[in-house]
Amino acid sequence: MPNPPVGCVIVQGDEAVGLGFHPRAGEPHAEVFALRGAGARARGATAYVTLEPCHHHGRTPPCTEALITSGVRRVVVAALDPNPAVAGRGVQALRDAGINVAVGVLETQATRQQAGFRSLIVRGRPWVVAKYAMTLDGKVAAPDEGNGQVSGEVARARAMTWRNELDAVAVGSGTLHSDDPALTTRGLSGGRDARAVVFDRRARSSLQAHAWRPGSVLVTAPDANTSAFEAAGVTVVQTATLLDALTGLGRLDISSLLLEGGPGLLSAFLDAGLVDEVRVFIAPKLLGLGLSPLTSPARRMHEAQELRDVTVETLGPDVLVTGLLSDIPCL
Amino acid sequence: MPNPPVGCVIVQGDEAVGLGFHPRAGEPHAEVFALRGAGARARGATAYVTLEPCHHHGRTPPCTEALITSGVRRVVVAALDPNPAVAGRGVQALRDAGINVAVGVLETQATRQQAGFRSLIVRGRPWVVAKYAMTLDGKVAAPDEGNGQVSGEVARARAMTWRNELDAVAVGSGTLHSDDPALTTRGLSGGRDARAVVFDRRARSSLQAHAWRPGSVLVTAPDANTSAFEAAGVTVVQTATLLDALTGLGRLDISSLLLEGGPGLLSAFLDAGLVDEVRVFIAPKLLGLGLSPLTSPARRMHEAQELRDVTVETLGPDVLVTGLLSDIPCL
Repeated sequence: MPNPPVGCVIVQGDEAVGLGFHPRAGEPHAEVFALRGAGARARGATAYVTLEPCHHHGRTPPCTEALITSGVRRVVVAALDPNPAVAGRGVQALRDAGINVAVGVLETQATRQQAGFRSLIVRGRPWVVAKYAMTLDGKVAAPDEGNGQVSGEVARARAMTWRNELDAVAVGSGTLHSDDPALTTRGLSGGRDARAVVFDRRARSSLQAHAWRPGSVLVTAPDANTSAFEAAGVTVVQTATLLDALTGLGRLDISSLLLEGGPGLLSAFLDAGLVDEVRVFIAPKLLGLGLSPLTSPARRMHEAQELRDVTVETLGPDVLVTGLLSDIPCL
Repeated sequence: MPNPPVGCVIVQGDEAVGLGFHPRAGEPHAEVFALRGAGARARGATAYVTLEPCHHHGRTPPCTEALITSGVRRVVVAALDPNPAVAGRGVQALRDAGINVAVGVLETQATRQQAGFRSLIVRGRPWVVAKYAMTLDGKVAAPDEGNGQVSGEVARARAMTWRNELDAVAVGSGTLHSDDPALTTRGLSGGRDARAVVFDRRARSSLQAHAWRPGSVLVTAPDANTSAFEAAGVTVVQTATLLDALTGLGRLDISSLLLEGGPGLLSAFLDAGLVDEVRVFIAPKLLGLGLSPLTSPARRMHEAQELRDVTVETLGPDVLVTGLLSDIPCL
């Protein structure tokens, strides 16, 4: 079972008397930390929580019990749990105990935070985020050049935080060969380094590449010879399609996957309809000839894939545009 | 002599008692309209003006005289006139009359408004603005497709206002042939329709194209046969280089030129170092294969041309990024 990112705040009058978030699987849930902070001041207070409180005994006791015992008067829930075994039951248990419960406050923002968790619960595969950085004339690299920096420092630092927030980071064999990326958070404070996933149909990548570390995954074709990778401790997923590959990664509890390149891998995912979210850095400079972000498909302009829920942000000199190609998975 | 865009506000106490702008050559200057509106309330007031008041008898009497006669106590000037025959003399005349004068307030914003005027005065050629619209994967058109719409309505309406604000709009012969653009403001209220300029080295474009209208200009090579164009009333500029072509357009009193495409024309101007400003619309959609905004040059990523004074704005679903490649011409 994947663990969702959840936050909880206990408010007494105008004051936030308890704050909590769920740090990782096996640790207490957000509500527990927030109630600990609030102590006796939770009595009569309002608890705000981004996901419906759990009502089942899992690795920790149910949060509904903790909330009821604390004496909170009201609970505001951003989104119901997408897990069919849980959905609605947490809210019902609170209401049965006489607590006033509101559901759906800032739901869009909350479900976007929970996209990975929801994708794995509902679809059995990770939420796929495609990321690239291009110039203002739409180029991700100069011709025959490896990893010349496109973005400025602020944008690169932001991209680094994604390697901390998402469960896995993927590259194709071409990018592995040309750039040899480390795919780590490079010492970001508290960084947990997403698992590195390499898509290499023929399994011929060099085992000397920096992406291979404990936990790294090779995704390859069913007939590829993977013995050297297995001997080196690499987890191997062998499938014929990208959809099956994602399901294989889901079985490894990977709930979110950041596609870092190159254009071939990204285009293959897009062509298969398997990109859920896009995050593009645009550097205000003009290159000329170079590599485009995508290598396919061929279609008319009115058939271009439109992004939804678009956000635009400036990061130093650069612009970050994000948007969704899929709906956030719900029940 | 080109006429700069100038605005003037007369402020008495906390109240704007007079507003004026210079509508077109031959009409009174901004100060005259503002002083007319203020009437007797100009006495002791402050006049704010975006460009140094003129001190010579041109098509209208000098604005310095009008300001002195009105009895204003203080004049705030955003930028000095770039014309060597004028620069500083207007300010000096006001000071000699005992008026308190401040210079350089919001100078950057004012000189950017006056880029065309300044370019023609200082360099003898128009300020060149390159404009294109691309998808989030950097494509301006689908393969073998003419003018499929890239941007949404709000962005297209903005681009339409530029055809009103700039003196001329240019396309290459390829774009003329494939898109047959009208290059008008399409009935924009008060729109004055910039002059259409067609760059066609061989002068083989169809005279049936919509771009040919009174005032249209053909820019072609010295050895091209232009008799049919001349017979049709088209103004012809024959030069061997783009720099000479711009000087030729400057002689026609064209102070600002909007490059509307295609990639070949834009790249030729960039390669010659003749693009001063870039305005790019980015539509949040993914196309795949298609035309890139530029067809040259080939260089490394760290040699890409960086834009300065970058602005970012959202227009409906689209993003508009602008920036400068040249400094605004000054004395």
